[in-house]
Amino acid sequence: MLVDLGSRDPQFISKVQTVREKILNAGGVSKADGYECVIVQGSGTFGVESTLTSAIPLEGSKILVVANGAYGHRIAEMCRIHGIDLSVLEFNEDKVPSAAEVTAALEGDDSFTHVAIVHHETTSGSISPIDEIAEAVKSARGDVTLIVDSMSGFGALPVDLTKGNVDYLVSSANKCLESVPGFSFVIAKRDKLEGTKENKRTLALDLYSQWSGLELNGQFRFTPPTHAILAIDQALREFEEEGGAVGRLARDEHNHEILMDRMTKMGFKLYIDPEIQGPIISTFLTPDDKNFVFEALYDKLASRGIAIYPGKLTEVDSFRIGTIGRLFERDIHFLATALEDCMDEMGVALPVKY
Amino acid sequence: MLVDLGSRDPQFISKVQTVREKILNAGGVSKADGYECVIVQGSGTFGVESTLTSAIPLEGSKILVVANGAYGHRIAEMCRIHGIDLSVLEFNEDKVPSAAEVTAALEGDDSFTHVAIVHHETTSGSISPIDEIAEAVKSARGDVTLIVDSMSGFGALPVDLTKGNVDYLVSSANKCLESVPGFSFVIAKRDKLEGTKENKRTLALDLYSQWSGLELNGQFRFTPPTHAILAIDQALREFEEEGGAVGRLARDEHNHEILMDRMTKMGFKLYIDPEIQGPIISTFLTPDDKNFVFEALYDKLASRGIAIYPGKLTEVDSFRIGTIGRLFERDIHFLATALEDCMDEMGVALPVKY
Repeated sequence: MLVDLGSRDPQFISKVQTVREKILNAGGVSKADGYECVIVQGSGTFGVESTLTSAIPLEGSKILVVANGAYGHRIAEMCRIHGIDLSVLEFNEDKVPSAAEVTAALEGDDSFTHVAIVHHETTSGSISPIDEIAEAVKSARGDVTLIVDSMSGFGALPVDLTKGNVDYLVSSANKCLESVPGFSFVIAKRDKLEGTKENKRTLALDLYSQWSGLELNGQFRFTPPTHAILAIDQALREFEEEGGAVGRLARDEHNHEILMDRMTKMGFKLYIDPEIQGPIISTFLTPDDKNFVFEALYDKLASRGIAIYPGKLTEVDSFRIGTIGRLFERDIHFLATALEDCMDEMGVALPVKY
Repeated sequence: MLVDLGSRDPQFISKVQTVREKILNAGGVSKADGYECVIVQGSGTFGVESTLTSAIPLEGSKILVVANGAYGHRIAEMCRIHGIDLSVLEFNEDKVPSAAEVTAALEGDDSFTHVAIVHHETTSGSISPIDEIAEAVKSARGDVTLIVDSMSGFGALPVDLTKGNVDYLVSSANKCLESVPGFSFVIAKRDKLEGTKENKRTLALDLYSQWSGLELNGQFRFTPPTHAILAIDQALREFEEEGGAVGRLARDEHNHEILMDRMTKMGFKLYIDPEIQGPIISTFLTPDDKNFVFEALYDKLASRGIAIYPGKLTEVDSFRIGTIGRLFERDIHFLATALEDCMDEMGVALPVKY
C-alpha cells in the first residue's frame, strides 16, 4: 500500500488483471468456466446496489428478497428506492431460510424473475444453506437469476459456484479475504452479464459498463483505489498460502471454537442455535446484570487494543464478537482473558446470569 | 495508512470529524458559515453522481449543464441516465465558458432549477472563471442551485465559497489535496442539503442520508475506506503546513512555469491559449514527426519512474503532463531532461515541428 502506481499505468493494469483472476479462483471458478470478476469502488453495499440495479431489467421484472436480518432488508430497501417490484420473504433474525421455504415462495408467484439472498447474515452470524437453496431455486425455476450477497462469508464459507446455480455473488475486499476496505467485487456469470447492457440505472454503479471497461483495456472507468488493489494482491497471496477458502475456514472455525469454549465458561449465551451459527461473527445475549454496560466494556477492551461490536438485532439486547480477520489462537485467548478482567472491573460476577 | 482502525471505533470517528472540518477549512468555510462536508466512498465520479441525484428533485427540475470537455459531458450523461431534464451549453474543448454566456442560456429558459459546471477541465487543463460565473448565475436567477465540479482544482485553484454563490462543490481526495484515491467529498450549503431528503435515487449515493448518518453518530452508513481517511488526515496536515490553497497553488504554478519553459524550448505547443491554461495539467499537441510515438514515449518515461498521460481530446492528437501532486522544481527538471533524452532515443529532432 505504500507504492503509488498510476491508475492507468501498465503495471497497475496488470495487477488489476491478476487480482480479478485470483478472486475468481478464490471462488473456485475462472473465466474459462464462464465467470467474470467485476470490481466496484466503494463499500460492499455499493457492490450489492450495482448488481441489483444492473442485473434487473428496467421493466417486467420482480425480485424475491429473502431476508433474515439487516442486510436482507437493505437489499429490499435498494429495490424500493429504484422502483423494482419485489416481495420480501421475511424470517426472524434467529432463523435461516430453508430451500423448501424459498421455493414455495417462488412457486407461489410466476412473475418472479430474480431472487436475492444473504449467505452469511452479519446481523446474527447465521449461515443460510446457500448451496441447497441455490439448487432448489434453479430446479424450481431455471429461468430465475439468483443473486447471493456473500459479503462476510466469501473466502471462508463455501459456496459452490461450479454447479452454475449462482448467477451473481457479491463480496468485499475487507471481510474474509482479509484486505483493507475500499472496494467490493462481483463474481458474475458472463452470459448473464452480457444481457444487462440496457439495464443501467446509474453511471457509477453500472456493472455492465464497469465490466466492459475493464475488459476493453484493463482500466477502470473511474479512478480505482489503487492502494487497496495493491493490498488485496498481497492479501490474496496470503489467502493462497493458507490453502484458500478451506484453510481460511479451518482457522476461523478453530478461533470460533476457542471463543465459544471461553465464552461458555463465562456463562455467555449465543443468540442463535449453534446449528446455524457460523464461525465469523457471534452474537451473545446481554446478561441480566446492571453492572454489564456494553459501552463501558467496549471502551475497556478498546484500551487493550481489542474491538468488539454492538448488537444489531431489532428485538433483543446483544453484542457481537468477530472471529474474522488475521487472528490466531493467541488473539482469541487474549480477548477472552481481557473480557474476564473487564467483567471483574465492572463488577459483573462470572458466570454471568440471564 | 498502516494503522488499522475499526470503522465504528471512536478513534476513527474522531478522525472523520477532523477531516470533514479540515476539508471545509481548505475551502475557506466552516460549519458555522452554514457549510457541510460529506464524504462519499468511491472515485470523484461517485461524488458528482451522488450530488446530482440528491440535489435535484425527482420532478419539476431542469438542469443547465455547462460542458467544455469530457467531465462536463459526463455530468450530462449522468442526468440522462437518471431521466433528469437537461440542456447542455456546449463549448469546444479549447474554450472556457464566460459568465455572460452562462447567464444568457439561463435567461433563455425559465424552467432551469439547477446549473452544473466544471471548474478545471482535466480534458484540456483549462480554468473556467468560476467566481464570475457563480456570481452572475446567482444575480440572474437567485433561486437556481449551482453545482461545481472542482475535482482537479479544489485545494489549489481558488473558488470563493464565502460569497455563498456555490451550493455544492465536489472534489476528490487524490487531486490537489495530494492524498490517495478512495473517496470524493462534497462541500454543500446546509440549507440546500436539508431540503433534499426526498430526492434520493439510490441508496449508496444518497448524499442526504450519507450526511445525516455522519451527523447522527459520526459514523459512515457503509464501511468507509479507513486507510484512505487516515491518509488524508496526513495530507491535510501537509496542506496546512504549505500554507493551504495559496501555498499549494504557488508551488503548482512554479512547477508549471518550469514545465512550460522547458517544453517551449523543446518546441512543444500548448493546445489551449495560455490565458485559460491552469497550472495543474497541460495538454500539448502531438508534433508532426513520424518518430514521435506516444506509447513509446510513455514506456520510456515510465521506465524512468515518470508517468505522463495520453490526450483526452476528441478532435486533436495530444498528450498531457500533470504538475499536480507532491512534485517540486527538481522533479519537473528531471521530467524535462528525461523527455529530451527520450526524444533523442526516438529520433525526434528538437525543437519539434508542427
